[in-house]
Amino acid sequence: MTHWETYLAEHKAQFLDELLDFLRIPSISALPEHAADVQRAGAWVAKRLEAFGIENVEIMPTGGHPVVYGNWLHASGKPTIMIYGHFDTQPVDPLDLWESPPFEPVIRNDCIFARGASDDKGNLFAAILAVEALLKTEGKLPVNIKFFFEGQEEIGSPQLKEFLAVTRDKFECDLILSADGMQWKEDHPSIHLGLRGLNTMQIDVIGANTDLHSGLHGGAVQNPIHALIQVLDSMRSPEGKILVKGFYDSVIPLTEANRRQIATVPFDETEFKTELGIEDIFGEPGYTTMERIGARPTIEINGIWGGFQGEGTKTVLPKEAHAKVTCRLVANQKPEQIRDLIVEHVFSHSPPGVKVTVRPLGGGSDPYLMPADLPGNRIAGSVLEELYGKAPYLVRTGGSIPIISLFLKELGIYTVSFGFSLEDENLHAPNEFFRISSFERGQKGYGLLLDQLAQALA
Amino acid sequence: MTHWETYLAEHKAQFLDELLDFLRIPSISALPEHAADVQRAGAWVAKRLEAFGIENVEIMPTGGHPVVYGNWLHASGKPTIMIYGHFDTQPVDPLDLWESPPFEPVIRNDCIFARGASDDKGNLFAAILAVEALLKTEGKLPVNIKFFFEGQEEIGSPQLKEFLAVTRDKFECDLILSADGMQWKEDHPSIHLGLRGLNTMQIDVIGANTDLHSGLHGGAVQNPIHALIQVLDSMRSPEGKILVKGFYDSVIPLTEANRRQIATVPFDETEFKTELGIEDIFGEPGYTTMERIGARPTIEINGIWGGFQGEGTKTVLPKEAHAKVTCRLVANQKPEQIRDLIVEHVFSHSPPGVKVTVRPLGGGSDPYLMPADLPGNRIAGSVLEELYGKAPYLVRTGGSIPIISLFLKELGIYTVSFGFSLEDENLHAPNEFFRISSFERGQKGYGLLLDQLAQALA
Repeated sequence: MTHWETYLAEHKAQFLDELLDFLRIPSISALPEHAADVQRAGAWVAKRLEAFGIENVEIMPTGGHPVVYGNWLHASGKPTIMIYGHFDTQPVDPLDLWESPPFEPVIRNDCIFARGASDDKGNLFAAILAVEALLKTEGKLPVNIKFFFEGQEEIGSPQLKEFLAVTRDKFECDLILSADGMQWKEDHPSIHLGLRGLNTMQIDVIGANTDLHSGLHGGAVQNPIHALIQVLDSMRSPEGKILVKGFYDSVIPLTEANRRQIATVPFDETEFKTELGIEDIFGEPGYTTMERIGARPTIEINGIWGGFQGEGTKTVLPKEAHAKVTCRLVANQKPEQIRDLIVEHVFSHSPPGVKVTVRPLGGGSDPYLMPADLPGNRIAGSVLEELYGKAPYLVRTGGSIPIISLFLKELGIYTVSFGFSLEDENLHAPNEFFRISSFERGQKGYGLLLDQLAQALA
Repeated sequence: MTHWETYLAEHKAQFLDELLDFLRIPSISALPEHAADVQRAGAWVAKRLEAFGIENVEIMPTGGHPVVYGNWLHASGKPTIMIYGHFDTQPVDPLDLWESPPFEPVIRNDCIFARGASDDKGNLFAAILAVEALLKTEGKLPVNIKFFFEGQEEIGSPQLKEFLAVTRDKFECDLILSADGMQWKEDHPSIHLGLRGLNTMQIDVIGANTDLHSGLHGGAVQNPIHALIQVLDSMRSPEGKILVKGFYDSVIPLTEANRRQIATVPFDETEFKTELGIEDIFGEPGYTTMERIGARPTIEINGIWGGFQGEGTKTVLPKEAHAKVTCRLVANQKPEQIRDLIVEHVFSHSPPGVKVTVRPLGGGSDPYLMPADLPGNRIAGSVLEELYGKAPYLVRTGGSIPIISLFLKELGIYTVSFGFSLEDENLHAPNEFFRISSFERGQKGYGLLLDQLAQALA
């Protein structure tokens, strides 16, 4: 056992206690009434970095929730690695489904139950602890380190594009490691090569100036709900192909090699269906489920409403109807371009008798795709193989982390995903938890990775 | 002036006071907490009938809100006329839009403002007062009279089909007059020849067993909102024609004579559009607006909901989506038959990956169409011409009054619409009112009509 591993083992109980403290801060970024808590969580992180010798620690204002920065830059001639994570959390509703209060962490079956435990405080803190262990036991770090921890990941990092454009010099580095990431299974690692981008909008359809009686006007006036579903339905074929003109034009086609790589990831269709309680899978023709999730774009209706929603019947012809729509985008689709195509489609497919508008809702992000053979990926892969005894799967995930494409765009630097969450840990759902074993594996993983990066990138 | 007209004139103030009393009873049939008020309104009517000599007055149980019955059957050799009306009202929400409390009637500008004033207490009471005036001044009536007043019209008369099937003998008569009806304008009368029927249902689409993350599952799992809009959109062409197989099969086609008759009713498209605040009219190709409303069936989505409806964005792939759907039916469509066609359509158009169900919501009714040249219509027409100085328009209305088709089905008797509401009187909306002039015209109209029916049908 190395000195730093011994250090981690000796401080195990203390570090777990500290994580529980961190988890007690209800840093929900989506709710304005928790803004001070997000700030408090940032301050907790900043103080924790200073405690073991990280320098130039700052809580940087962004116009929204802050970014916490700190560095240690005394490894002359060695690469500079920036570690990313976020200290904000998802909201907690529905609260009544939680078995223990979301911000009163408890340990059951060697798992830490609390909102933010897995996403992302446990991972973020594990990365910090690895750096502390290295610095405390060796008196120095094998690489130069910068930390970039944000408080607005869960709301799509709305202020960080402008923030990064102004502050980018401060974050110059050779490689970014993201502590906001997942492994394939408890016993099998993975490396994430891609994330999907995001585009958000609301479609509003307005008809008459008041709700109408479906008897006295029905059949002679356009019904905004009918108009809305007609517009929405025109965007997708019954088989699941997007019909918006030009939608797929900038998508990088999957090569045979890409498809083989994706196919190596074991996907059990029966298990997938059983878990979700569905009888059939569904999606764009010509692609596998893993390809559809990781490598193909979508238009998804996230919400729809209009007219009467109560018990029984109300024979109303409502005056308006609405839908929330998001796209998941893949490289090289641009959110603005895709939005323009959709706006054009909506206008050219709107029926007479109603006014149809499309309103962007903000919080979009570019898709992200990195080469599999990047040195950072190779080295992270070998560390994961050492930790798990198995080579990692190379996967593309369907979710979006706006900052990762922003880092690429603004700093020109790829981010290697190096987080230890698992899919069953109820991220974004009640009873979120993080395995203590993953917390410890994360600490060791970061220690090993920084050591190996120092050698490989030197 | 006849004796009975003098009687009505002399008791004018008293009758208006009594109407205000009647309007103070909040007899909202849709709300269970007002069931006792509906009962109380029925008792008020029953007592009022007995007060001037109507016999065999009964408050008849129906399993729901009651029917009030009474008769006077001493006009030997004369026809028996049954007068219909309803003493229940619509709910009052949104309450804050009322200028005075809905059940505290006030008179402004010679109009009585209260919920139920126009629909239908004012009309119902006007018919009663005409009979009282005839009986009190002549000592007898020119015809035999039965009264059928119900307390569940506003909820679609759910118990009256079974009720009529059992009690039909009691209601045998030669003609029915409905005091639940409208005139074209304040200065122009109309006779209603048709009403549309109604069919109600809810479509439920269930996907996965939980809401899903649109990033981690989007593109690979059927979205219940997409499935729902696909099913709904398949039911109607973009031009407004219903595409459900067999939907129009039992519709009686409009003859050229029918179309000419409908075309005599003045319809001002510009006024229609301005009033509703819409730029274009819309409806089934090949028909005019008046034909679409009165003589063609519809499938109307009255409500839709699923997923996220709040501010901003939630990247959810919801587990379910729902829609409320009603049809307005025309002769000779049958609600059950049309429902079966829609169920079949929905099942054959449901995409894979979700469960789609159709659930009838109850309260349907048959469409109603009567010959224009029925003696009852001719006589009512001549009375209206006497009252207004103009021959009535013959119209088909797009609304539904279930009892009128039930009377035809169970008793084999047509109902002549003879009511004095006007379209601008905020029926079913805040600030409902009834013109005092219409209240008085109704009393005179019923007196004249009963007199003329006695002569014509003898």
